[in-house]
Amino acid sequence: MSFDRLDHLCRRLDALDHAQAMLGVDEAVMMPEGSGAARATAMAEIAALHHEMTTAPEVAEWLAAAEAAATEPARVAALREFRRMHSNLTCLSSDFVGRQVRARMASEQLWRQLRPHNDWHGFLPAFREVVALAREEANRRAEVLKLQPYDALMEQYDPGNRMAEVTPVFSTLKVFLKDFIPKAMAAQARRRAGKALRGPFPVARQKALGQAVMAALGFDFGHGRLDVSHHPFCGGVPDDVRMTTRYRTDEFLSSLMGIVHETGHGLYEQGLPGEWRHWPVGKARGMALHESQSLFVEMQLARRAAFWKFALPLARQHLGAAKLLGVSVASMVRAVQKVKPGLIRVDADEATYPLHIMLRYELEQALISGSLKPEDVPEAWNARMQESLGLDTRGNFRDGPMQDVHWPSGAFGYFPSYTLGALAAAQQFAAIRRALPDVEEDIARGHFARINDWRRDHIWSKGSFLSTQEIMRQATGEALSPRAFMAHLEERYL
Amino acid sequence: MSFDRLDHLCRRLDALDHAQAMLGVDEAVMMPEGSGAARATAMAEIAALHHEMTTAPEVAEWLAAAEAAATEPARVAALREFRRMHSNLTCLSSDFVGRQVRARMASEQLWRQLRPHNDWHGFLPAFREVVALAREEANRRAEVLKLQPYDALMEQYDPGNRMAEVTPVFSTLKVFLKDFIPKAMAAQARRRAGKALRGPFPVARQKALGQAVMAALGFDFGHGRLDVSHHPFCGGVPDDVRMTTRYRTDEFLSSLMGIVHETGHGLYEQGLPGEWRHWPVGKARGMALHESQSLFVEMQLARRAAFWKFALPLARQHLGAAKLLGVSVASMVRAVQKVKPGLIRVDADEATYPLHIMLRYELEQALISGSLKPEDVPEAWNARMQESLGLDTRGNFRDGPMQDVHWPSGAFGYFPSYTLGALAAAQQFAAIRRALPDVEEDIARGHFARINDWRRDHIWSKGSFLSTQEIMRQATGEALSPRAFMAHLEERYL
Repeated sequence: MSFDRLDHLCRRLDALDHAQAMLGVDEAVMMPEGSGAARATAMAEIAALHHEMTTAPEVAEWLAAAEAAATEPARVAALREFRRMHSNLTCLSSDFVGRQVRARMASEQLWRQLRPHNDWHGFLPAFREVVALAREEANRRAEVLKLQPYDALMEQYDPGNRMAEVTPVFSTLKVFLKDFIPKAMAAQARRRAGKALRGPFPVARQKALGQAVMAALGFDFGHGRLDVSHHPFCGGVPDDVRMTTRYRTDEFLSSLMGIVHETGHGLYEQGLPGEWRHWPVGKARGMALHESQSLFVEMQLARRAAFWKFALPLARQHLGAAKLLGVSVASMVRAVQKVKPGLIRVDADEATYPLHIMLRYELEQALISGSLKPEDVPEAWNARMQESLGLDTRGNFRDGPMQDVHWPSGAFGYFPSYTLGALAAAQQFAAIRRALPDVEEDIARGHFARINDWRRDHIWSKGSFLSTQEIMRQATGEALSPRAFMAHLEERYL
Repeated sequence: MSFDRLDHLCRRLDALDHAQAMLGVDEAVMMPEGSGAARATAMAEIAALHHEMTTAPEVAEWLAAAEAAATEPARVAALREFRRMHSNLTCLSSDFVGRQVRARMASEQLWRQLRPHNDWHGFLPAFREVVALAREEANRRAEVLKLQPYDALMEQYDPGNRMAEVTPVFSTLKVFLKDFIPKAMAAQARRRAGKALRGPFPVARQKALGQAVMAALGFDFGHGRLDVSHHPFCGGVPDDVRMTTRYRTDEFLSSLMGIVHETGHGLYEQGLPGEWRHWPVGKARGMALHESQSLFVEMQLARRAAFWKFALPLARQHLGAAKLLGVSVASMVRAVQKVKPGLIRVDADEATYPLHIMLRYELEQALISGSLKPEDVPEAWNARMQESLGLDTRGNFRDGPMQDVHWPSGAFGYFPSYTLGALAAAQQFAAIRRALPDVEEDIARGHFARINDWRRDHIWSKGSFLSTQEIMRQATGEALSPRAFMAHLEERYL
């Protein structure tokens, strides 16, 4: 009875989630500029309604009664994940949430305005406010969840992420990368450069190529589509996955690699279990596993030499053979496998990317604990960039601590998921290679069915029934570790 | 206090309306085919939530208390329109609504399947069920609203529409048209045919022409856009008006005339008052006035000779001068002003269209009163088509009583709005011509600002603060009558 009431509520909430997801997609892809205010009002009202419906007093009663009555394992798991969502929503007062939403919106708007002007000092007051609220949030969540404050923040994005497990993994990786990156760059310098790719590549042809690659990778166009937006994303709902990219005509790889990355996210969503789709337990497990699915397709599949045996003929077919005259699989591989330290996280290659993440992970912990003051972030940032990538960022706030939207929008605790996802992807690919020793032949032929079957069985169909760690253990035979990722880098770049 | 609670509720309901409108647009314009079931589920849940929120017992209490306290005229009007919506929603039991929704969906699906096969007898059982439920609905509404049953159905689409006023108007018009149509066709036969328009007209060029015409007509592209869908519509919300059309490449007039028609709807929405936008009183007055706005642009402006002095050069510019070589304003006017009796309402010209409506108006009343049985509809249809347009429809159910979606979907009482809108548009144009004697020069120059100012002042900005009749009286100096429309037809076609 109580369970049925929760089931009914989940259907209602899922419908609101569906609406919010689609309104978000429409805003990025279709909405005329002047309609932003009305759209923001509508989405804020729906979010408030969603919050009220979830946190209504009777829901807590239903939940307790349903938990007491549940014995069937699927129901127990469904109630566990509902409880997790419920705690995440109820542990902050609505007064606090209101203050935080306003501070985050003000800070993010100010950041958008000041970043182009490199104006750190103008941004600092808003940043201070956001950090202060994040500390308050972390402490409140920590108290309810019985966790360390920073762990309580990570918990929202990746249930089960704990500093006690993440820090040693990152430390091992850091030591490895300090030695590996110079070696990889030296090896790279010894190789001949590939043939340069010369545009223009018309957008319509790039789109057709992208869609052909998506279809080969297993994306279901009956339940999703590819559009254009300023910032590429994978949105929508499992039954209707909306992916975007953006095109430049002087080259096609940045768009195509973006498409394959988002296709990874899309396949995970399309592969989620059908039966529990309206409950939290039917949704994707967390950001690390989600990122593992996009990086699996982008890094493990699409930046592999075998992939280009299949993809280069497809590229010739769609972009025109004349445009790719003299371009070999080897030169495509050189183009998609480059190690080059840089200031910007989102432009980083897979080898230097984790160092960007570790920098943020360390500074976030210090900001949340209070050992680092917001005004001292640029100095700390520069020190770590010097140490890890040998780059000087003094005075360059725009490409330093002002480069990401996460901090201005108050999303502390999110960054680690990116690198944990990269490690998980490498570990999953290694497991698939053990299960299917001839997997490279599948890739070279553009046959991804066996690979996707493995991923559907071991990851997608699990929804949130198991923890991230348990999914990884059952899928790969061991807990998440940096080993497969390090082996992957050595195999690819040395 | 009670008013503020209703205001808060209206904001919530308006956000849900916003979501439903955009989900509907997305479904028609963007959604992949396989996602229909998930979309239908989400929209049904949101509709149920909307219904529950509006009909919750406390809302009736707030409404009564707010009505007792309100003195300020705008508030009184806002509460009056809220009461109207509330009565419309609460006068049917949710059990009855559920039965009706299921019967309508089944009947509409069956109709889509059987119409291509001309299978009236297969459709009849579902049609019987829908008619029986419409009769029950009409009687329930009539009891609550103290109206005649058919009036109670019309009231949903056009508050204030009453058979006692509509029937004499239609009778006058019917007598006029019986005499007028043969005369118009004879006059038409005496004129030389215009130069035939020869395609192909590429879609991208037609779209650019359509957008240029929309912009000239005053459509705000900062708060709306034009897309493609199978059935053209004007959807979205006042702050974000989404219009669609469809293109064929052998000719461009059907799409362009469709675009100007929908632009008329869009201008009304964009011109609604800002302050009360989330209350029912801030929304469009009814379907007749809405249709008057689309027909004003299509029939009164865009099928007028003056319009083509402005539009023909624009068409040359966008479609290519070579494509319109030897085409004169006179030949464009001939192409857009044709009287030709036919079987299909949506393809009918403005002179024969009212006869299609009167046929449906008469049969609907007879179906609702019970004097006509569903199985006798084809015979009654044929008799009226013979009498009014001289056309035989025996055995042709597909282009007879099975041609429209309205009956299969249970929308009885809607049809009169189309013709009342046509009369209102002619009456509005006549009033503008009295206020702005040189209005034809504005049209010939593509300057629609003065015309739109008049329409904004007299119609758009009124929202639902006044009744349709009162809006017409204040705008044109008299109640809605067929006189201006008849004069318009004589001026144009004789």
